[in-house]
Amino acid sequence: MAERTTVTPWEVSGEIDYNRLVKEFGIGRIDQELLNRIKKHTKEIHPMLSRGIFFAHRDMNWILDQYEKGNEFFLYTGRAPSGKVHLGHLIPWIFTKWLQDKFGVELWFQFPDEEKFLFNNQLNLEDTQKQMYEDMLDVIALGFDDKKTHFIIDTKHADLMYGPACKVAKKITFSMVKSSFGFNESTNTGAIFYTAMQAVPAFLPSIIKKRNIPCLIPHAVDQDPHFRLTRDILPKLGYYKPASIQCSFLPPLSGVGGKMSSSKEHSIYTTDSPKEVERKIKKYAFSGGRDTIKEHKEKGGNPDKDVSFQYLKMFFEPNDKKLAEIEDKYRKGEMLTSELKEIVIKKINSFLKQHQKKRKEAKKKLQKFIYKEK
Amino acid sequence: MAERTTVTPWEVSGEIDYNRLVKEFGIGRIDQELLNRIKKHTKEIHPMLSRGIFFAHRDMNWILDQYEKGNEFFLYTGRAPSGKVHLGHLIPWIFTKWLQDKFGVELWFQFPDEEKFLFNNQLNLEDTQKQMYEDMLDVIALGFDDKKTHFIIDTKHADLMYGPACKVAKKITFSMVKSSFGFNESTNTGAIFYTAMQAVPAFLPSIIKKRNIPCLIPHAVDQDPHFRLTRDILPKLGYYKPASIQCSFLPPLSGVGGKMSSSKEHSIYTTDSPKEVERKIKKYAFSGGRDTIKEHKEKGGNPDKDVSFQYLKMFFEPNDKKLAEIEDKYRKGEMLTSELKEIVIKKINSFLKQHQKKRKEAKKKLQKFIYKEK
Repeated sequence: MAERTTVTPWEVSGEIDYNRLVKEFGIGRIDQELLNRIKKHTKEIHPMLSRGIFFAHRDMNWILDQYEKGNEFFLYTGRAPSGKVHLGHLIPWIFTKWLQDKFGVELWFQFPDEEKFLFNNQLNLEDTQKQMYEDMLDVIALGFDDKKTHFIIDTKHADLMYGPACKVAKKITFSMVKSSFGFNESTNTGAIFYTAMQAVPAFLPSIIKKRNIPCLIPHAVDQDPHFRLTRDILPKLGYYKPASIQCSFLPPLSGVGGKMSSSKEHSIYTTDSPKEVERKIKKYAFSGGRDTIKEHKEKGGNPDKDVSFQYLKMFFEPNDKKLAEIEDKYRKGEMLTSELKEIVIKKINSFLKQHQKKRKEAKKKLQKFIYKEK
Repeated sequence: MAERTTVTPWEVSGEIDYNRLVKEFGIGRIDQELLNRIKKHTKEIHPMLSRGIFFAHRDMNWILDQYEKGNEFFLYTGRAPSGKVHLGHLIPWIFTKWLQDKFGVELWFQFPDEEKFLFNNQLNLEDTQKQMYEDMLDVIALGFDDKKTHFIIDTKHADLMYGPACKVAKKITFSMVKSSFGFNESTNTGAIFYTAMQAVPAFLPSIIKKRNIPCLIPHAVDQDPHFRLTRDILPKLGYYKPASIQCSFLPPLSGVGGKMSSSKEHSIYTTDSPKEVERKIKKYAFSGGRDTIKEHKEKGGNPDKDVSFQYLKMFFEPNDKKLAEIEDKYRKGEMLTSELKEIVIKKINSFLKQHQKKRKEAKKKLQKFIYKEK
């Protein structure tokens, strides 16, 4: 029986068919031509791009047109605090940092502290706000430029955001959010309003700087319904449609095809100890190997189904040659699942050791990142 | 053919039957017992109370219970800027000032600068915000205590209000606002969210002062649907239900039974010159007099239908004895409509002369009234 697949900003479940999403959402595939064009500016291509982790976009060519004409864009991404940050969250942020470095542009990073509260009866606002400060440490730890990065918090910066959000909301009817997000008459009025708040960072820098600035949003594909609406509305308010570059999801330990989630088990958190990582990978990471060592050596494993291999591919082994070697050996049965797992455990723990160190240091820098009105 | 009567926060039309509103809304009539109880504290009874301009309430006895136990309440009222301020707007504000003076309590005065923008396609946010500063001058001119009065502006103070509004909004579904305000699927999502913002000043002082403070809202009866919702929600968030004391509408020049409105003709604005007031009253003030002077002298006029007399009764002649004399003379035909109009013109112009002077002086005080976080 086929599991029902759902991809909305608030729920991702079932086996995700990214090809179908591209069609359904009407987003563009990132092709070789676009990669070449990006490379003209960035000199190198991030593995998340060449390996198709970032696989889709809207108006990337327009962003590059503007950039080439000297009309610099800004980046906008975000994080709605609720549960702990896991490895999957880091993917769009790491890529966003790469874009910031390569293009030398500003990043506006939204923390919609009300979002998960509005969509989850179990959460209270104080908890999501407390979690938010933890999340900020993870973002800062990735090395964003504090002079070019502005954190905006929906409740705290509402004096800047609520007025512009009302301008957006005035153009969005209930029937529009009903069809975009599947809302019904029992949906609460905060949730109904919320998408307008998520639209604001796409033009807030234009308001603040009093000139129309192109916006590029790196985000996971589940957020597209928000930004489809944003793109419909912003031109009506005299602003550019924001462009986007969209990634797939890091799978949970339990198997490829889904999305790692803090609300489910089987996630690796940025605060996990080396022992926890080892235990989780060994116990839970879905294997593409055969039932017995003998069979594995004879017939080989399937790296496409192997979560450990996918983590290397999506995140932890940037070297294409090394990755290809591992893939080849695993496919041929020369490498066992246990050996593959040892590699990924080492890689994750080496990353997390650095990350956790930088995460600690981030506490001192936090106030520098939070946007202050001049 | 009976004109259809509508009383919602955004539309008041038709002949208003206040008795029916009391029943429909389920509000309490202000009776002699309650007047006596209020008088115990205020020593005197404001003419707007004794004459039934403020005619209804919710939980006034509870407010007095609390007050008598030493649990002081605060006042909350507001003004949604759109068109110019007219005499009708001043009625609840004048009464609110009286309550502030008599009970020595704080007033939180909300300026929801987004409200009319969200409910009117003709308005833009910048215009309502410009008008708001004009409106503030009218409020200050009435003599509120700047040490006990705090203006809060929805967009400017959204950093204090949006979070609490989300807590309210989470408890209000679309079907609730649909039935409270007659919304439908074409209603915009800002309008759908708005009532949550209007709820916030009823508990914002409790948040700021970190203790639960009773709230009394003096307002015109058309706002009751908002506060019915507020009263349903606030106990669920751990706050008191706000109490209210509600007034009828100053009629437009065109005839009693309706509501003076800045969006219609036939209103007297606080910035009108003495000549304008004279012209408007003489030309438009609906007369309760007879068709000819002869008939008027024989059969007498009808002060209940006479707009000029109603203005004296509701606003400009606080002296009961003098008012009774005028009523008596007019009813008997001893006073002509033209004479009655001369009285009201003189009264309005004398009030406006003072008001406009204080309105000018108010500019200097404005910043003192706008709430600042400590």
